[in-house]
Amino acid sequence: MKALRKLRPGRGAQLESVPVPDLGPADALIRVRAASICGTDVHIYGWDRWSAGRIRPPLTFGHEFCGHVEKVGAEVTSVRPGDFVSAEMHVNCGHCRPCRMGQPHVCQNLKIIGIDADGCFAEMVRIPARNVWKIDPAIPERCAAILDPLGNAVHAALVGEIAGRNVVVTGAGPIGLMSIAVARACGCASIFATEVHPHRRLLALRMGADQALDPADPTIVDRVREATAGAGADVLLEMSGSPAALQQGFQMLRPGGRASLLGIPKEPFALDLINDVIFKGATVYGIYGRRMFDTWVQMTELLKHGRLNLDPLFRERLPLENFEQAFALLEKGDAGKIMLYPGGVPK
Amino acid sequence: MKALRKLRPGRGAQLESVPVPDLGPADALIRVRAASICGTDVHIYGWDRWSAGRIRPPLTFGHEFCGHVEKVGAEVTSVRPGDFVSAEMHVNCGHCRPCRMGQPHVCQNLKIIGIDADGCFAEMVRIPARNVWKIDPAIPERCAAILDPLGNAVHAALVGEIAGRNVVVTGAGPIGLMSIAVARACGCASIFATEVHPHRRLLALRMGADQALDPADPTIVDRVREATAGAGADVLLEMSGSPAALQQGFQMLRPGGRASLLGIPKEPFALDLINDVIFKGATVYGIYGRRMFDTWVQMTELLKHGRLNLDPLFRERLPLENFEQAFALLEKGDAGKIMLYPGGVPK
Amino acid sequence: MKALRKLRPGRGAQLESVPVPDLGPADALIRVRAASICGTDVHIYGWDRWSAGRIRPPLTFGHEFCGHVEKVGAEVTSVRPGDFVSAEMHVNCGHCRPCRMGQPHVCQNLKIIGIDADGCFAEMVRIPARNVWKIDPAIPERCAAILDPLGNAVHAALVGEIAGRNVVVTGAGPIGLMSIAVARACGCASIFATEVHPHRRLLALRMGADQALDPADPTIVDRVREATAGAGADVLLEMSGSPAALQQGFQMLRPGGRASLLGIPKEPFALDLINDVIFKGATVYGIYGRRMFDTWVQMTELLKHGRLNLDPLFRERLPLENFEQAFALLEKGDAGKIMLYPGGVPK
Amino acid sequence: MKALRKLRPGRGAQLESVPVPDLGPADALIRVRAASICGTDVHIYGWDRWSAGRIRPPLTFGHEFCGHVEKVGAEVTSVRPGDFVSAEMHVNCGHCRPCRMGQPHVCQNLKIIGIDADGCFAEMVRIPARNVWKIDPAIPERCAAILDPLGNAVHAALVGEIAGRNVVVTGAGPIGLMSIAVARACGCASIFATEVHPHRRLLALRMGADQALDPADPTIVDRVREATAGAGADVLLEMSGSPAALQQGFQMLRPGGRASLLGIPKEPFALDLINDVIFKGATVYGIYGRRMFDTWVQMTELLKHGRLNLDPLFRERLPLENFEQAFALLEKGDAGKIMLYPGGVPK
Repeated sequence: MKALRKLRPGRGAQLESVPVPDLGPADALIRVRAASICGTDVHIYGWDRWSAGRIRPPLTFGHEFCGHVEKVGAEVTSVRPGDFVSAEMHVNCGHCRPCRMGQPHVCQNLKIIGIDADGCFAEMVRIPARNVWKIDPAIPERCAAILDPLGNAVHAALVGEIAGRNVVVTGAGPIGLMSIAVARACGCASIFATEVHPHRRLLALRMGADQALDPADPTIVDRVREATAGAGADVLLEMSGSPAALQQGFQMLRPGGRASLLGIPKEPFALDLINDVIFKGATVYGIYGRRMFDTWVQMTELLKHGRLNLDPLFRERLPLENFEQAFALLEKGDAGKIMLYPGGVPK
Repeated sequence: MKALRKLRPGRGAQLESVPVPDLGPADALIRVRAASICGTDVHIYGWDRWSAGRIRPPLTFGHEFCGHVEKVGAEVTSVRPGDFVSAEMHVNCGHCRPCRMGQPHVCQNLKIIGIDADGCFAEMVRIPARNVWKIDPAIPERCAAILDPLGNAVHAALVGEIAGRNVVVTGAGPIGLMSIAVARACGCASIFATEVHPHRRLLALRMGADQALDPADPTIVDRVREATAGAGADVLLEMSGSPAALQQGFQMLRPGGRASLLGIPKEPFALDLINDVIFKGATVYGIYGRRMFDTWVQMTELLKHGRLNLDPLFRERLPLENFEQAFALLEKGDAGKIMLYPGGVPK
Repeated sequence: MKALRKLRPGRGAQLESVPVPDLGPADALIRVRAASICGTDVHIYGWDRWSAGRIRPPLTFGHEFCGHVEKVGAEVTSVRPGDFVSAEMHVNCGHCRPCRMGQPHVCQNLKIIGIDADGCFAEMVRIPARNVWKIDPAIPERCAAILDPLGNAVHAALVGEIAGRNVVVTGAGPIGLMSIAVARACGCASIFATEVHPHRRLLALRMGADQALDPADPTIVDRVREATAGAGADVLLEMSGSPAALQQGFQMLRPGGRASLLGIPKEPFALDLINDVIFKGATVYGIYGRRMFDTWVQMTELLKHGRLNLDPLFRERLPLENFEQAFALLEKGDAGKIMLYPGGVPK
Repeated sequence: MKALRKLRPGRGAQLESVPVPDLGPADALIRVRAASICGTDVHIYGWDRWSAGRIRPPLTFGHEFCGHVEKVGAEVTSVRPGDFVSAEMHVNCGHCRPCRMGQPHVCQNLKIIGIDADGCFAEMVRIPARNVWKIDPAIPERCAAILDPLGNAVHAALVGEIAGRNVVVTGAGPIGLMSIAVARACGCASIFATEVHPHRRLLALRMGADQALDPADPTIVDRVREATAGAGADVLLEMSGSPAALQQGFQMLRPGGRASLLGIPKEPFALDLINDVIFKGATVYGIYGRRMFDTWVQMTELLKHGRLNLDPLFRERLPLENFEQAFALLEKGDAGKIMLYPGGVPK
């Protein structure tokens, strides 16, 4: 079968023919319909410092997808050939302390398919059956292909109260944009997005933000406070990984508010814990992955009932063979989602 | 000033002229713009058993309203004459155990204005300033007049998770209908309403229910389960006070689900605790009043940002003098909200 | 091997020789060291209405035990032969809605070992490896054998706040008694136990209750209120399944309090939802099983660090052969735990 | 009356005679029995940078005390002359957004008695009646005098789960030491304290820590992990304000754990958000003041029922006149609590 692989350290990737994966008794083999490209995939493609430290070539990468079950192992009863599915690509061990305490998303022995094992930029991908997620037919294919990052956004937005709350989203990359749609669908009051790129600010507005603010504008902290009874926003969703954005976001947060931190800073940086967290009595959630599988239930219910409008996110649909074009587009900084089709782009 | 008063035990009420209330140093006097009629007011008017046991005539009744601050006591700084306001009519003591524990809505010494003290079916009403709630100009007057029951609905719906959750609402009276709008605005998955009256079922659909079910239909429990992965609804909002509805509602609730009980049964009745609560691992919330004042913050933020559509609820607007017409309409069982205007109906 | 089996409908049980269970690839075989008798086992032995409807003889019953791993299936890595273990006997399916939402304890396809499959009143018992729980060497053997009911008590007590809270425990059977020890260990303020049997009231005091009250005493509701600032207890742990106890317990609960219902009433009964739940703004938790496996983590940490004193609970230690003596003692109503040893009672 | 006052910027304080405070209608006048010295008072006495920016002399300082109500304003009904009381010295406004949302401890217009208004290092202190807290006679006087810092410790420890959880406390100053007693009383598993001063490590052990660790020992992170199933502690209570302690504390925290940050760093510092918060899926609570007044209910219930052993904390009892001796002792770094008696030290 075809697979897009990282064959050696360094920039780029190569499409080659590899054997279809063998299945264990608890595995499912999925024929990939559409795979979406994550920012992490762009890092792997470009081979940044993080990739060099984590990825062990050769590897088929890619971890956002949907497809149909092709075959299942002997013990699998939860899915059947033909089922339309996606998958949680974080595979937890089931017996470490966090797993035993209902927090498998921070399993101490986590393996990520597409990072630590062969992923979905291929015709077929092997997934443990308990990580396979059946997709309701009411959910569009392109949404089904991006449940991984959407789950990040849902996890961040819904880890605390959002209904009737004022929300700041710092960073309007793909997950930031999705979190705007989620907050909007779930009854938040107003949404203020901050984002340096003008075209992403436009996207933020299209996704449902009430205001899309330029972080360079020195008045924006005061503007958020004025719009919120002088208090500041109830909720901060930090989606940028930028120290400056995070600091500004905390200034916009009201006393007693909550922050969900998902964006990954490049290195440790100074945070004004005194004023931003302690004296504020703030609650800060580190957000990693998706709750397994409650986040999946929530997001697929939202999608199934048409509560989320993700349309502005979607960009090119390309055959897997055109991967170089896809990565080139993303390296230019577009926040949209590009879809690769191993079996060819459907009409 | 004019006031609609219950002068003696027995059916009916009388419009009479009474002195404007005196103000204590911490009170505010509000000129009533619009007052809405609650089901409780209909009970007081008709003088049912509950009224006979609780109400001590003479009393100006009414507890849902909006208006403008006319005058404030010497110590009041939080509101000023001219402010457009509504009020929390449950007045808590501030020093009992529940008050000290952040649960003033279940204060052990609660007094209700319009029940235990003169209420808002009058030109003016006296309210302790800390119970007065300023209304954002973006909120329509008729919504401002029904914050009391809307707060009940918001309290019931948002006491637990609702985003991405499937919801059953049993009973489509005014608060049940409002809770449908709230659940819808806050990102619930699907809403199933059950209601015996066909015209209320239609209203339920107009408020945002996906299905409005006749409780007499023996298939509806199964239909809810089928629509919810065989599990049942995640959330039950019990708004009817009917034992049959409550029992049916619990049958529709999934294992691990949560129920908010707001409707008030007429008397104790048999509940299948074993199967409906214990074996299900359900969480049941008794809902009384509104959280003070977090529910007020949530609901006014929702209204201010246009997240709630309450239009289908509103019925006649009448001058206070036409109270007999208003009560006659409500006694026929309409679930809509009728507004009385002590200063005359605006054009 | 020896096994105590229910061979046919009707009273009694029979010790017979049966084959050692076969193991699947994900199973573990445990050599039972000590098995404890649950009230449910007494029902099965006596063959009450519930047993007649649920149990399908022939069956080896028993579901509270500890022992050593004898052998594991090919895929098992989490435990090894020789490990000292107990097990969660509720086996969840892993793919129903509650399982997917982090609530496997209310799995819709739950199987209970010792009820639906052969249990631990035998020399060996087969358990899916993920349900096996390793026991820290600091935990005494007799405590390790009663983790199943202790987990019920921990689940009920710790599902909400308990530190600094006043607690009523209605019913001082084994789980009620354990819940007293748990509440005490976890910093509750005062504990009021209610129990009809004088000897169980004495046990309640020995387990840490501040007062052990006779439910027939008409002054006890007032006494609890007087001791709690006039408010009532913060927490009700209902452990009796008696309608009268439950009603009295709710009268002792303060406005805004929480109740954990674990005792199983024999049939539906009238509950004063209005005054006990709705007007009180109470939160009621149905408690079934143990959270998997967070309750196990909590209780074994408590035991390992010596926080729980369960000594007063333990009664006779008997060889499995003496089962008739054991059941006879329990049928007389003792609340203590009797231990059966398939391999003979250790010195 | 006598009062210990800061008369001008700069080191020191002066005992002088001042008029007894006037009372407003909602105030109470308290005759101070015992006042305890907070680290903040030591800063004010020594006049550090924070004091120079915040304190406006002349000021009677001191904010930890107990005493008897001497007189109350005309509207006060909640306390009476002769009542034995302490007080919450954080006075909230009641109408800002956090106050309205049930978070008065982070009121945007907070005034602190003893910082922003005359405090308790005096014969009498004026307190708004709603901030006065009645003390149960079962609570020892010296405990009643330190409810303010004890409340900080209770707030930090009980903001999340503690029963059956492993806890790290970084910093064994007075509040750190109290938090050890609280965690112990509330059923934590093991407690690891880290502290640079050997004598404070001894105190930590006397308060109930299982291990008191020297932060300079490079093996201690691994030791905490080894003792906690390889995972790390469930709970971090950061009580030092030291960046090094905080960083080390986070390394000791398990994935999915929670941290309560109370110690106040001197300035912003670099935090490894990526590994310590985000990838860990940690929850971080900023802790400021005490929940009003739920923390007060919890801590006084714990004290009343003898659940907390605070004995090791108490040091010298001195007449107010000996304040120089008291501050000299504290400036040497003792972590104990010194009590000043404006009316003379009782026998």
